[in-house]
Amino acid sequence: MRFSPLLEQLIETLRCLPGVGPKTAQRMALQLLTRGRDNGKRLAQSLAEAIEHIGHCQQCRIFSETEFCEICTSMHRDPALLCIVENPIDVSAIEQTNIFKGKYFVLLGHLSPLDGMGPEEIGISKLKSYFHQGNIQEVIIATNPTVEGEATAHYISELAKQYAIKVTRIARGVAIGSELEYIDPNTLAHALMGRELI
Amino acid sequence: MRFSPLLEQLIETLRCLPGVGPKTAQRMALQLLTRGRDNGKRLAQSLAEAIEHIGHCQQCRIFSETEFCEICTSMHRDPALLCIVENPIDVSAIEQTNIFKGKYFVLLGHLSPLDGMGPEEIGISKLKSYFHQGNIQEVIIATNPTVEGEATAHYISELAKQYAIKVTRIARGVAIGSELEYIDPNTLAHALMGRELI
Repeated sequence: MRFSPLLEQLIETLRCLPGVGPKTAQRMALQLLTRGRDNGKRLAQSLAEAIEHIGHCQQCRIFSETEFCEICTSMHRDPALLCIVENPIDVSAIEQTNIFKGKYFVLLGHLSPLDGMGPEEIGISKLKSYFHQGNIQEVIIATNPTVEGEATAHYISELAKQYAIKVTRIARGVAIGSELEYIDPNTLAHALMGRELI
Repeated sequence: MRFSPLLEQLIETLRCLPGVGPKTAQRMALQLLTRGRDNGKRLAQSLAEAIEHIGHCQQCRIFSETEFCEICTSMHRDPALLCIVENPIDVSAIEQTNIFKGKYFVLLGHLSPLDGMGPEEIGISKLKSYFHQGNIQEVIIATNPTVEGEATAHYISELAKQYAIKVTRIARGVAIGSELEYIDPNTLAHALMGRELI
């Protein structure tokens, strides 16, 4: 015997959280029961609520509990500019720059046939109908600078060109504050090829 | 705008878990929604259930959803031997040694007047009635080897002596596999004073 059955079950289910192993799950469960029962109750409720009500925006596929998300329905967002990202968290990262005032489209992944991620899974049919509306003048592809991200970017750029939409890709180069010594050769090559006039 | 209100709320409530900051909470929430909705539902249920049903064993104060816990009601446990620990997790640590076959009493903390932890809060009245039953022949005090843990150990040993019960304290010394070079002087002093004949 280690803990009571309900407590063991709570520890086991806590392990579904990313980065939570058996020790952390144990610590979490015990702390919630010792001095966090109100918080725990709130967490259980908010989790159940979120899972029941949060779906995807019908236009951009970001998480949203309404049919269309706040950005898609905003009057202050430029509908001519569409930024395409892999994950909802990337939207949050770009929003933090305070530089982009257009709209988004979230692929919810990247092309990866071996993992069963084809064009349908990354919402290409929805993206096509978005392109078809005719408002978009520039598509900024901000998928990750990985092999899969680049392949996905290539696929989307070919598609956008069929709709005569200008396509750009976020610049790949050296990170602000980094040291050349520690930068991988691929990135450095990109930074050299993409050099800018000063 | 960063995320939808329900999602922001989930991220906020996830932060009640120990060791979970804003970034981790975000990652957890997004992963639960992206590819863990079933797990999330199970977690919400098990959390609500645990918080509603898990109380404390009426005899030893460990977490239990029944009036008396499995150890207290076990016929294979020596009722003459009582090990006193600070936290439920300490019971789990001692159980893992597979050496102790007595019963436990969990203080749920230690004496710390400044934090409002007096004898009543650590269950001394319950411990007294436990001592009063007359079955206990030896009390092993396994509170943490900290200032508060030692003070609590002293308090309990004085109490147990009033009931003519033998009191022992877990040995303090050098940890197996450690190197003398890195051991703090206090521990080393204890190890010297508590030296054993070989």
